[in-house]
Amino acid sequence: MDLSTTASVTKAKRVANFNAGPGALPLAVLERIREELLDWRGSGMSVMEMSHRSPEFESINADAEARLRRLLAIPEEYAVIFVQGGGSMQFTMAPMNLRLSGKPVDVLHTGTWTAKAIGELKKGVLHHIAASTESEKFARLPRRDEVKFSADASYVHICTNNTIEGTEWREVPETAAPLVADMSSDIASKAIDVRRFGMIFAGAQKNLGPSGATVVIVRKDLAERADKNLPTLLQYRTHIKEKSLYHTPPTFAIYVVGLVLEWVENLGGTAGMAKRNEAKAKLLYETIDGSGGFYTGPVPKSDRSKMNVVFRIAGGDERKEKGFGKEAAAAGLVGTPGHRSVGGMRVSLYNAVELAAVEQLVSFMREFQRTRG
Amino acid sequence: MDLSTTASVTKAKRVANFNAGPGALPLAVLERIREELLDWRGSGMSVMEMSHRSPEFESINADAEARLRRLLAIPEEYAVIFVQGGGSMQFTMAPMNLRLSGKPVDVLHTGTWTAKAIGELKKGVLHHIAASTESEKFARLPRRDEVKFSADASYVHICTNNTIEGTEWREVPETAAPLVADMSSDIASKAIDVRRFGMIFAGAQKNLGPSGATVVIVRKDLAERADKNLPTLLQYRTHIKEKSLYHTPPTFAIYVVGLVLEWVENLGGTAGMAKRNEAKAKLLYETIDGSGGFYTGPVPKSDRSKMNVVFRIAGGDERKEKGFGKEAAAAGLVGTPGHRSVGGMRVSLYNAVELAAVEQLVSFMREFQRTRG
Repeated sequence: MDLSTTASVTKAKRVANFNAGPGALPLAVLERIREELLDWRGSGMSVMEMSHRSPEFESINADAEARLRRLLAIPEEYAVIFVQGGGSMQFTMAPMNLRLSGKPVDVLHTGTWTAKAIGELKKGVLHHIAASTESEKFARLPRRDEVKFSADASYVHICTNNTIEGTEWREVPETAAPLVADMSSDIASKAIDVRRFGMIFAGAQKNLGPSGATVVIVRKDLAERADKNLPTLLQYRTHIKEKSLYHTPPTFAIYVVGLVLEWVENLGGTAGMAKRNEAKAKLLYETIDGSGGFYTGPVPKSDRSKMNVVFRIAGGDERKEKGFGKEAAAAGLVGTPGHRSVGGMRVSLYNAVELAAVEQLVSFMREFQRTRG
Repeated sequence: MDLSTTASVTKAKRVANFNAGPGALPLAVLERIREELLDWRGSGMSVMEMSHRSPEFESINADAEARLRRLLAIPEEYAVIFVQGGGSMQFTMAPMNLRLSGKPVDVLHTGTWTAKAIGELKKGVLHHIAASTESEKFARLPRRDEVKFSADASYVHICTNNTIEGTEWREVPETAAPLVADMSSDIASKAIDVRRFGMIFAGAQKNLGPSGATVVIVRKDLAERADKNLPTLLQYRTHIKEKSLYHTPPTFAIYVVGLVLEWVENLGGTAGMAKRNEAKAKLLYETIDGSGGFYTGPVPKSDRSKMNVVFRIAGGDERKEKGFGKEAAAAGLVGTPGHRSVGGMRVSLYNAVELAAVEQLVSFMREFQRTRG
């Protein structure tokens, strides 16, 4: 199966998948997995059955790392590791490893996920909220003039895309301290300048693959800040030193990440993804904006996420919103209801979501408005 | 695909897989995964693409837990959770959650994996080596009269099967303090009395499925020992309260664990597995013992593992041992070299390894002895 295609002929019934994560995977990737499932490239084994110390798996692991380095143009002074525990584990590991004595962790507080990060910092880590839009329910990002960094921060925590609130930083702020970015929901969706960051982390299950693998890109000198007496698995240096093979890694998840990255490269890399993602988001936001107020997006245009499009129906009519989600699912458009904490609708447009799926969705939206508007 | 079969017709070339973990999976399970890969049971999605909050995945998660409870007859007062980080993460989480102030963690020190557990305890946890066979290179387990428990231990750590050294506790010792068992390499290979344990943990990648999921079976009252100020993800109670869905779990790995458990149930549960495993181990040990000293097992019969059979060739002739591993692999018998730390040979006979694979191996062994003996 050629991973340069965006879709492929198959007999399986497939839905349009707008799940917020785990979410859609490229069909070509799934078909490759299926093809190799009982016998990975003549090895006589599934990837799931391979020793993580075998040359076969070492090549899979090295290939996934190399592809991510190429795709994001990651400089040599950064390590790339695959760990377990999802983005949430990084809310613990980042401060454990990167905090400096007496120097606060600054946080740009923009939603549910930064709230979780703050929750972990509250367990004894000196920290400072450098900006927050909580009083506006996080419907926008802080303006530059609202941000007050500490003079001596250990690092600054940012969430580049807020899945639940539907906001995305167009450009990250300049910081004196290293910027630590939770990029779980927009990694590899566009080009970034890795040098603007001290560390980037991302659970794989939105843009990179299945859940169970977490990518950490960390400047090697920062990883050396950590106390060597920390639990071995919770030190970045352990995984850097052993190239993610200190202990048994989530081998199959790393394999799938590699295939997804191969697919991204074949479609033009992050530039190709950005173009795809812009087209999808444009179509959906135009449909919302052109609905005469039937569909309304709470987020100002400058802060709108290209990954997670949130909107309300008929001024927040919950009965209509519930109906929309159910009828959309019945029409094969899965995953449109908003996060249970905020309600409304949320459509996730991660890399693997096809423009054709969004076209189907906007047709459905127009029809829904016509009959219920 | 019916999961009651032990093998199935397929066109893929498959090797006999004696890897120590990740290791062999039942062919019927792999075929089921393949069949459902693009469309899980009419959902129109791969399991990898499902929201972990969807009714579909919740049913997969609940099913895997229910099957494990049935198979191991886990009483109601124990929680069953799926977490990330492998067995190694439990070397940190167990003491974090279960230690009591001023009361040591007792360890039965029987090999490389208990050494790793001790390594984490040395980072500030009061502990006591209740027995050790290190002076004999862990080639046997401690005798009952050699074990000296503390009067007031927080808990006792045991590794029920030592993969690298090839030893397995036939019966675990009686302890006053809760017994915490690293059962990574023999869980579900035979019946156990869960009530003998305070906690059982196991990385999935040997007997239960792929790497990336870790099973923890913990008495609920013990999980309440933990300080609530610990990192959220590192508290058992977090995962117990949220039924392993506090954050995005390794969804695909849990799905595969469920399929493997279904396969185990269909083959007669742990009793069926014990019978299978005894037959395989008997054949291999008899071949070793009947070789007139060409093959020698260092472990006394009473302590021999049924999961990992270690042996030397021609009194530890490294050139012959290397040759054996290479020629066996060329003959489609994969994974026979011993762990790099100890050398020699190691053949892992986890649940999914077929008797036919062992028959192939012992034929190869006889032929190897005939030509090189």
